[in-house]
Amino acid sequence: MPNSPVLNHHISSQFNEDLQDVNTKFMTMGGLVEQQVANAIHALLDTDANLAVDVQFKDNAVNQLEREIDEALTLILARRHPAAIDLRMVIAMSKANTDLERIGDEAAKIARIAQSLCEDGESPRGYMETRHIGNQVRVMIHDALDAFARLDAEQALRVMMADADIDREYQSATRTLMTYMIEDPRHIARVINVMWVLRSLERIGDHARNISEQVIYMVKGLDVRHTSFEEVEKHIQK
Amino acid sequence: MPNSPVLNHHISSQFNEDLQDVNTKFMTMGGLVEQQVANAIHALLDTDANLAVDVQFKDNAVNQLEREIDEALTLILARRHPAAIDLRMVIAMSKANTDLERIGDEAAKIARIAQSLCEDGESPRGYMETRHIGNQVRVMIHDALDAFARLDAEQALRVMMADADIDREYQSATRTLMTYMIEDPRHIARVINVMWVLRSLERIGDHARNISEQVIYMVKGLDVRHTSFEEVEKHIQK
Repeated sequence: MPNSPVLNHHISSQFNEDLQDVNTKFMTMGGLVEQQVANAIHALLDTDANLAVDVQFKDNAVNQLEREIDEALTLILARRHPAAIDLRMVIAMSKANTDLERIGDEAAKIARIAQSLCEDGESPRGYMETRHIGNQVRVMIHDALDAFARLDAEQALRVMMADADIDREYQSATRTLMTYMIEDPRHIARVINVMWVLRSLERIGDHARNISEQVIYMVKGLDVRHTSFEEVEKHIQK
Repeated sequence: MPNSPVLNHHISSQFNEDLQDVNTKFMTMGGLVEQQVANAIHALLDTDANLAVDVQFKDNAVNQLEREIDEALTLILARRHPAAIDLRMVIAMSKANTDLERIGDEAAKIARIAQSLCEDGESPRGYMETRHIGNQVRVMIHDALDAFARLDAEQALRVMMADADIDREYQSATRTLMTYMIEDPRHIARVINVMWVLRSLERIGDHARNISEQVIYMVKGLDVRHTSFEEVEKHIQK
């Protein structure tokens, strides 16, 4: 069924426009989610209850964007029948969209805990660890989205590697917090709340890693989930 | 570009075969993941270290199925250009596939904790809660997959509602465990491990809920994420 070149051109330019629109929306969502994570961490560390409430409220906007992006992607699949890298881009965006929404969920969870810790008064135990891991995780999200925007598989691989660091730091911070609890059981409830925050940050790192895996899939056509760094590196340099 | 009926028929029957194949694989994966969750809980409650090791090992098989299913779905999109409910089925399966893999991850995490608790000797604190929530979560996974297989939107809604129960029970179990820790700080490390298990179970409930939301999307064409039960109910009965 060969189409006329004119029709092909028409389909292709309309397709590009559709894909550009959803890509813009995806990047808007990425920026919003980045901000949500930053604000959730600030709300906790600076005991800013208003900011904590604001983050929880804005989670609705994240959810709304998730729906709109998925709807736009479905329309592209139904009408434009993308192939090759275009199809991979649609699939990657659909998967990464879910990860962004989950990062938004974790930010809202951190904000909820921040709000309740504000009410209880300060709890400096574990805040240094939270600040440290929080900064690393924010950089990961930013770099993963940047790799997505620039189709940069090598940067995506670096984000995947950063996730391994975060997992180690998370393990070590958890052990430290456990020691605090054993030393001073009066603060158990508060320290556990900080543990939940660290857990959320570690999850956010996982999601940023997932997004990076989708970048490599999109650019290279390779499914690198559950693959060692060495193997991924070999494939990328091919 | 009207195709000949023969070609249409050919495309359609080949399409059905492809979709049937990936559907079978999806159900195999669902069955395996169900078993992984059941075994992880058994390993913990019956302090069965061998079973705990087995669950962690079998997570590879879950990961492998995830990749195969996504690959098959991408081929269907590239070659068959599904429309309407067929397209929704492909999209729903792609999303639900991710959720099944994450359930598998949580089962492996529970198994890892089970293994380390086996080495430390028994820790009956919180086991009753684990058994109880574990059973509820297993039923949720089963019912969500069953709703998927039978395209049953009403059952899917019931699974979504069950998730709200689990969230409540999880909150209450967490409070109980916190009390144990405050009463007897010597067992903090062990009780925290049980808390991680409950957290994993709660997440598994979330994933079963996500799968159910995809069932409703597939059958009714409605995106019911972030929607109240009342609204979903209204839409389903239309």
